[in-house]
Amino acid sequence: MTIHLSDLPESARSLLRDQTIELPSWAFGNSGTRFKVFPSPGTPRNAYEKIDDAAQVHRFTGITPRVSLHIPWDVVDDFSDLAEHARSQGITLGTINSNVFQDDDYKFGSLTNSDEAVRRKAIDAHLRCIDVMNATGSDTLKIWLGDGTNYPGQDSIAARQERLADSLSVIYENLAPHQRLLLEYKFFEPAFYHTDVPDWGTALAHVLALGDRAVVCLDTGHHAPGTNIEFIVVQLLRAGRLGAFDFNSRFYADDDLIVGSADPFQLFRIMHEIVSFGALAPTSGVNFMLDQCHNLEEKIPGEILSAMNVQEATAKALLVDRAALAKAQVEHDVLTANQVLMDAFSSDVRPLLGELREEQGLDPNPLAAYAASGYFARISVDRVGGQQASWGA
Amino acid sequence: MTIHLSDLPESARSLLRDQTIELPSWAFGNSGTRFKVFPSPGTPRNAYEKIDDAAQVHRFTGITPRVSLHIPWDVVDDFSDLAEHARSQGITLGTINSNVFQDDDYKFGSLTNSDEAVRRKAIDAHLRCIDVMNATGSDTLKIWLGDGTNYPGQDSIAARQERLADSLSVIYENLAPHQRLLLEYKFFEPAFYHTDVPDWGTALAHVLALGDRAVVCLDTGHHAPGTNIEFIVVQLLRAGRLGAFDFNSRFYADDDLIVGSADPFQLFRIMHEIVSFGALAPTSGVNFMLDQCHNLEEKIPGEILSAMNVQEATAKALLVDRAALAKAQVEHDVLTANQVLMDAFSSDVRPLLGELREEQGLDPNPLAAYAASGYFARISVDRVGGQQASWGA
Amino acid sequence: MTIHLSDLPESARSLLRDQTIELPSWAFGNSGTRFKVFPSPGTPRNAYEKIDDAAQVHRFTGITPRVSLHIPWDVVDDFSDLAEHARSQGITLGTINSNVFQDDDYKFGSLTNSDEAVRRKAIDAHLRCIDVMNATGSDTLKIWLGDGTNYPGQDSIAARQERLADSLSVIYENLAPHQRLLLEYKFFEPAFYHTDVPDWGTALAHVLALGDRAVVCLDTGHHAPGTNIEFIVVQLLRAGRLGAFDFNSRFYADDDLIVGSADPFQLFRIMHEIVSFGALAPTSGVNFMLDQCHNLEEKIPGEILSAMNVQEATAKALLVDRAALAKAQVEHDVLTANQVLMDAFSSDVRPLLGELREEQGLDPNPLAAYAASGYFARISVDRVGGQQASWGA
Amino acid sequence: MTIHLSDLPESARSLLRDQTIELPSWAFGNSGTRFKVFPSPGTPRNAYEKIDDAAQVHRFTGITPRVSLHIPWDVVDDFSDLAEHARSQGITLGTINSNVFQDDDYKFGSLTNSDEAVRRKAIDAHLRCIDVMNATGSDTLKIWLGDGTNYPGQDSIAARQERLADSLSVIYENLAPHQRLLLEYKFFEPAFYHTDVPDWGTALAHVLALGDRAVVCLDTGHHAPGTNIEFIVVQLLRAGRLGAFDFNSRFYADDDLIVGSADPFQLFRIMHEIVSFGALAPTSGVNFMLDQCHNLEEKIPGEILSAMNVQEATAKALLVDRAALAKAQVEHDVLTANQVLMDAFSSDVRPLLGELREEQGLDPNPLAAYAASGYFARISVDRVGGQQASWGA
Repeated sequence: MTIHLSDLPESARSLLRDQTIELPSWAFGNSGTRFKVFPSPGTPRNAYEKIDDAAQVHRFTGITPRVSLHIPWDVVDDFSDLAEHARSQGITLGTINSNVFQDDDYKFGSLTNSDEAVRRKAIDAHLRCIDVMNATGSDTLKIWLGDGTNYPGQDSIAARQERLADSLSVIYENLAPHQRLLLEYKFFEPAFYHTDVPDWGTALAHVLALGDRAVVCLDTGHHAPGTNIEFIVVQLLRAGRLGAFDFNSRFYADDDLIVGSADPFQLFRIMHEIVSFGALAPTSGVNFMLDQCHNLEEKIPGEILSAMNVQEATAKALLVDRAALAKAQVEHDVLTANQVLMDAFSSDVRPLLGELREEQGLDPNPLAAYAASGYFARISVDRVGGQQASWGA
Repeated sequence: MTIHLSDLPESARSLLRDQTIELPSWAFGNSGTRFKVFPSPGTPRNAYEKIDDAAQVHRFTGITPRVSLHIPWDVVDDFSDLAEHARSQGITLGTINSNVFQDDDYKFGSLTNSDEAVRRKAIDAHLRCIDVMNATGSDTLKIWLGDGTNYPGQDSIAARQERLADSLSVIYENLAPHQRLLLEYKFFEPAFYHTDVPDWGTALAHVLALGDRAVVCLDTGHHAPGTNIEFIVVQLLRAGRLGAFDFNSRFYADDDLIVGSADPFQLFRIMHEIVSFGALAPTSGVNFMLDQCHNLEEKIPGEILSAMNVQEATAKALLVDRAALAKAQVEHDVLTANQVLMDAFSSDVRPLLGELREEQGLDPNPLAAYAASGYFARISVDRVGGQQASWGA
Repeated sequence: MTIHLSDLPESARSLLRDQTIELPSWAFGNSGTRFKVFPSPGTPRNAYEKIDDAAQVHRFTGITPRVSLHIPWDVVDDFSDLAEHARSQGITLGTINSNVFQDDDYKFGSLTNSDEAVRRKAIDAHLRCIDVMNATGSDTLKIWLGDGTNYPGQDSIAARQERLADSLSVIYENLAPHQRLLLEYKFFEPAFYHTDVPDWGTALAHVLALGDRAVVCLDTGHHAPGTNIEFIVVQLLRAGRLGAFDFNSRFYADDDLIVGSADPFQLFRIMHEIVSFGALAPTSGVNFMLDQCHNLEEKIPGEILSAMNVQEATAKALLVDRAALAKAQVEHDVLTANQVLMDAFSSDVRPLLGELREEQGLDPNPLAAYAASGYFARISVDRVGGQQASWGA
Repeated sequence: MTIHLSDLPESARSLLRDQTIELPSWAFGNSGTRFKVFPSPGTPRNAYEKIDDAAQVHRFTGITPRVSLHIPWDVVDDFSDLAEHARSQGITLGTINSNVFQDDDYKFGSLTNSDEAVRRKAIDAHLRCIDVMNATGSDTLKIWLGDGTNYPGQDSIAARQERLADSLSVIYENLAPHQRLLLEYKFFEPAFYHTDVPDWGTALAHVLALGDRAVVCLDTGHHAPGTNIEFIVVQLLRAGRLGAFDFNSRFYADDDLIVGSADPFQLFRIMHEIVSFGALAPTSGVNFMLDQCHNLEEKIPGEILSAMNVQEATAKALLVDRAALAKAQVEHDVLTANQVLMDAFSSDVRPLLGELREEQGLDPNPLAAYAASGYFARISVDRVGGQQASWGA
C-alpha cells in the first residue's frame, strides 16, 4: 500500500519536481501578538542573516529557492549586494512587499488617506519599492494595506475607495512592463470596523481597473469564518487574476500559523483546485508563497515544515484519480465522487516525497537533517548582540 | 428635543415621501424550519389572497405599493387578471422570482446541472417567468439559486460556473429591452459545502459578463459572520450594479426575521451609505424589497412593522448632519465623526414619521390602525378550508 | 511504511476491537432542508425497515451494533416486538430520542412553555419515551430541545430556564435507577434569537442540578464558528458528564453531513482527547453515536462510511506515540509535539483496519462489499408504495 | 414625546442615580495592534497621571468613581500614596488586574505551565497583587490569562486544566475574607489553538470549585460570532456568579472599541436582562467595568462617551414597560412583546440623562464640557518628555 514516486504518472512527477514555494523574510524574525513578542535565540539581526536562514530551508527541502522582502523592514544600503548574497547562498530575491502601516503618518490611512501629503508619501513608498525591484530583479510588487477605520462614520468608505483606486493607478503606471502588481485583501485587522480591501471581490475590482499586470493575492487566513476558500481560488483562476497565495493557517483570526497545521484537508482541497485548473505549473503565473509568524516555535524548522506541508498537499492532489472523479461527478454519484477525493487525501505520501528528495540528492527527512546540521547551535552563539529582527525592523 | 418633519430639509422630506418598499408574496404564507412549519389562522390559500394581505400593509403604511411573486408558488391561470386584482387593491405586481429548487429534477442543481436536460428545464422555467413578467408588466426577473454541493468532490466547482454563465446568458437574451436580471448571492444553504453564487464578487462577475441590465441583489441575511454589509453596498453602487435589497434580519444564519429586529444600527448604517451615495431616489435603480418569513409572529403586522423599520432607518439616515460629518472626517476627528452619525441614530424619529403619515391621510400608528381594522378576525373566519399557502405552494 | 494491525500494542488493538458506534434510525429516512426534501428509492417506510437498513451497516462494518430510535417518528404498536426484530437482525435498540418540536402545541416551546398544559404535555411525551425504554431495554433518554425564541423580548430567558429545570427534574425522577438522561445542547436552530440550551455550560449546569445519572450529549455540529470542540470534550470528561457524542460534520451550520467529511483532522483531535483521557473503553460511559442526514447521497453507504471514518480517526488516535508526545510537551518543544500528533494523522490506517475486519470475518472493504450485496437493488424494488420515512414520520 | 427624568418611577430614577462604572487605567495609555501602536499627545507617563485622567471622566459624567489598576503596568513605590492621590482627585482604586502574559518566562503559560518554577512565579505574581489590594483597599482580584497553545499537541489540555485549578486554589486561599477572585474567560488570543479559559462554562466550573467568593467576569468582546451574550448574563446570574462586566465593542475579534459603538441594541439587551434580574443595584455584586483601547480616538473623551453609552442603555432598559412585556409574553404575542422592548430602545433618553446630570450639578453634555475645560491642551503641553504609558508599561 505504500505509495511510491513511480506510482505517479510522469506529468505529475514533473509538476512535483518543478514546484517552488517562496519564503517570507519576516518569518525568520521575532513576532508575536499585541500583547507580547517573545524573543528567541539565533534570531537574525538584518536582511543578510534572514537570507542565510531562508537558504537553510532551501538547502534541506529543495523547493524554496526564493525569499520575499518587506520594505522598509529589509532595507539595506545596497540591494544588488543583497541579491548577490542571496545568489551566493543558492536562492534569489522574490516579491517585494510594501509596508505603509508602521509610520505615524499612516495612523488614519496610507493610500486611502484624505490628507494628500500622507497619501503621496504612501505612493512614494511604493515607488521606492519599485526601485528595490529594479535593483534586485524582482518582478512583483505586493501591496497589503492596513488601511481602514475603527468606527462607523470615521471616514467615507466610498471616498476612500476612490483615493485607493487613484493611488494604485499611479503605482501601477510606474511599474516596468515585465513587473506586476499583486493586491492582497484582508477581512479584518488592523482596522476593526472596515478594511479598505476586505475581500476578493474588492481586490478583483481594483486589479481589473488597473490592467493586465495587476493580480490578486489570496492569503488563506484572511477570510470570514466558514468561507469556502477553494471556491475563491476557482473564481480568481476563471478571471485570470490569481497572482499568488500567502499560505498560512488560522483557527479563528489571522493567526499566521504553519500552513496545513489547522486544517490539512482544506489545504488539500485548495491544491486540488489548483491542479484541476492546470495552475500548478511554474508558467501558470501563480506564486506559492508562505506568510507566517513563528511566535512560539523555532523559525527555520517552522519554515521547513511549512514547505513540506504544501508539498504533501500537492502530492495528494496529484494522486486524485481524475477520470474516476469526473465519471462519478457526471453520474451524480455523490459518495463515490467524494471518496475518490478522500482516497487521495487519506494516502500517506511521505514515502513518495522522501524518494523525490533522494532523487535530488537531499535527505528524505529535511527536519531531521536540519536538526543534525548544527546550524541552530551556531547561530545561537554567533548572533548574540545587535538587535534581533522583529515586526517593524 | 422632539424631531418634527419640518426639521428635515425639503429634499429629505421629498425622499422620505417618495420611498417605496416592495413586499414578498411568500411572507404572507406559512413558513418554518426544516423541523416544522407551524400553521396560523387566516393564512392565504392562493396568490389572490396574498395580494389582498399585501394591500393591507400598503393601506396602513402607504409605502409598500408593490408585491413580488414567486413562480411557481404564485402561479395562476391568468396573470393579467392577477395584476388587475392587485391594481384594484391599490398595489401593483413587482419582481418575479424564479424557483428552481423544489422540483425533484433539481436535486443536483438547476442552472449548473451537468445533465443538459435538467439544465434546459431550469432555463425554460426562467423563460416562463419572463412570460409572467410580460403578462404582469413586471420589469425584473430575480434569480436566487439553491444550487451547490454538500461534499468536496461532489462536482466540479469550475465546470458549474461555466454552465451557470451559459444558462444566465440564455435567460438574459430572452429579456425584453426594458427588463432586467437581478442575481442574488447566498453564503450557504440549502447547499452546505459550496453554493454556486456565494458572495457579491461572484454575483458581480456574472452580471458584468451578461450586460448592462444585469444587476446584483443583496440579501442582508446572506453573509458570513462579521461581514461589513454597508461596505458591499458601497462597492456595488460604485460598480453601478446594486439592483435591489432583500431586507431581513439574522442572528446567525439566514433567519429571515423582521428587518431591523436583530441589529437596527446595521440597518441604519446601510441606509446611511445609500443616502450618502444618492441611491435613495426612485430613479436610482435600487429596489428596496423585503424577504422575510414570519414563522411565529402574525404575518400582516410583521410586514407592517418591517416597512416601518426601514422607514425609520431611512429617516435617521436623512437626519445625519453631512456637513459636520465631512468636516470631522477630513480632520481625522474620529470621535466627532462617529458622534455625528450616532446623534442621528439615537434620535427618535417616530413622531416625524407619524406626521408624514398624517400628511398622507394615514393613521400615525399603522400597527394600531391595522389591529383596529378587524381584518385579521375577518380572514381568520373566511379562510377556513382549502390549503394554506406555504413554502412550496 | 504500511501500518499493520500488529504495529499497535495489544491494548490499542483491544480498544479498536471493542469500539462500537450507535446508528440513528432517522439517517435511513429521507431528509432535507427547509426548502426541499428530495426522495430516494428504497427509503424505509417504518421503524422495522429502518432497523433492517441499520443492520446492513453493522453486517459490513462490525462496529455498529445499536440503533437509536426517535419518538414519535419510530412509534410502533409493540416495542418489544421491534426490539426482538432488531435482535433477529443482529443489533439492539439503543438510545431513545424524544421529539417535542413537531406538534402544533409546541410552537412557543415545550419543556419551557409558560402554558402549563403544553409544558405538562411535553413532560408526558418524555414519560412515554421512558415507557419505550422500559419496553426496549434502552438505558438512555436523550433530550434535544427545539425550544427558544426568535425575537428579543418574545419571552423571559430566565423564566424559561426555571421551567426547563423543573421539567427536567420531573422527567429525571421518572427514570429507573439504571437509566440515564442525556441532555443535548445546540447553538442555534430552529430558534434564531436564543435557544434554551445553547452551549455545554448550560447543559452541564442542568445535569449537575439533576443528579449523577444526568449527562451531556455533544453534537459536533452544534457550536459557534471557531469553537475548539476537543476542549469541550476535555471539560465534560473532567466533570464526569460526557455522556455521548452525536457525530456529524458541518461547514457552517448544523449541516448533519457525514462525520469526518468536512474536517477529518478535527475528528482525529477529538478522538485523541478521548484516548488520552481513557474514555474510549466501553466502560467509560461515553456513547459514540452518529446524528446525520443523507440529503443527497445514498443512506446505507453513507452510514457505513461514517462508521469507517470514526474508526479511522480512532485508529490514528491510538497510533499517537504518547511517550514522545509527553516528552516534547514537557520540554516545550512545540514543533516536535505537534509533529508527533501529525505523524499519526498523516499515516494511512486503512490497511490496518482492513486486517481488523478480516480478523473478524468481514470484508476489508465494507463499501464495496455492501455494493456487491445487491441489498439496495432489492429494497428499491420491494419498497415501492407506502409512505417513505422522513422528518416528522 | 421627549422623555423626562420625571417619566421614570422613583425606583428607576434611584437606580440610575446609584449606577457606577469602573474605568480601566490602561484605557488612558497608548495601545494598538500587533502591527503598530500609534502615539498620541498628552498620554500619561505613570499611574498617577492615569488616575488624573480617570478623574476627569468622573468629573464630567459623575458615574465613574473608581479606576482599575493593572499590575505590573501600574506599579508604584507606594500604593497607599497612589490610593490617597486617587481620593484627592475624587475617585478610588478598584479592581486589581494581574498580568502574567508579558514576561519572557510566560512564553508557554503562567498558571498552567508544566514548569513548576514558572507556575510558582505566576502564582507569586498574584500574591503580590493581593498585597496591592491590601495596600489600596481594593476588594477584587481579576485574573485574565493569556495562557493557551498555538498548535494541536503542543501541550495537554487536560493537564493544563489541573494545573490551573491548583494555581487558582492557592491564590484563592490567600485572599482575605472580604476579597473576591474574578475569573475572566476569552475565546481566543493571544493563544490561537486553544485558550485555557475560553468560555463561561470553563470559568464557572473553576469558580464553583474555588468557593463562594470566586465569580466570573464577562468581557463583551470575548465570544464566538453569533453568541447570545445576554443569555450568558442570565446563566451567570442564575448561578450567582456574575461578578463583573468588562464592557467594550467588537465587530469581529477582541477589538476593544468603545462600548455601544458596534451594536448598541446588544448593549441594551444586556442591560435589560440585568434590570430584569434585579442586578443593577450596587448591592447586587455585579461590577460594571470598561475594558477598552482607544487606538485612534482621543482617550479621555473616549472613556466619557463609553460611560455615557452604558448609562443610556441602562436608562432605556429602565424604560421598558415590564407589565406590558410580561402580559404579551404569557399570551405568546410575539410582536407585541418585541415591540414593548423596541419601544424603549427607540426612545431618545439623552434629555432625561441631561436632567439627571443637572440634578447632580453637572453639565448636561459631558463631552462638550470636557472639550471646553482645556484639560487636553494642558496635558499635551505638560506631558512632554518621559515615557508614555502603553501596553506593557
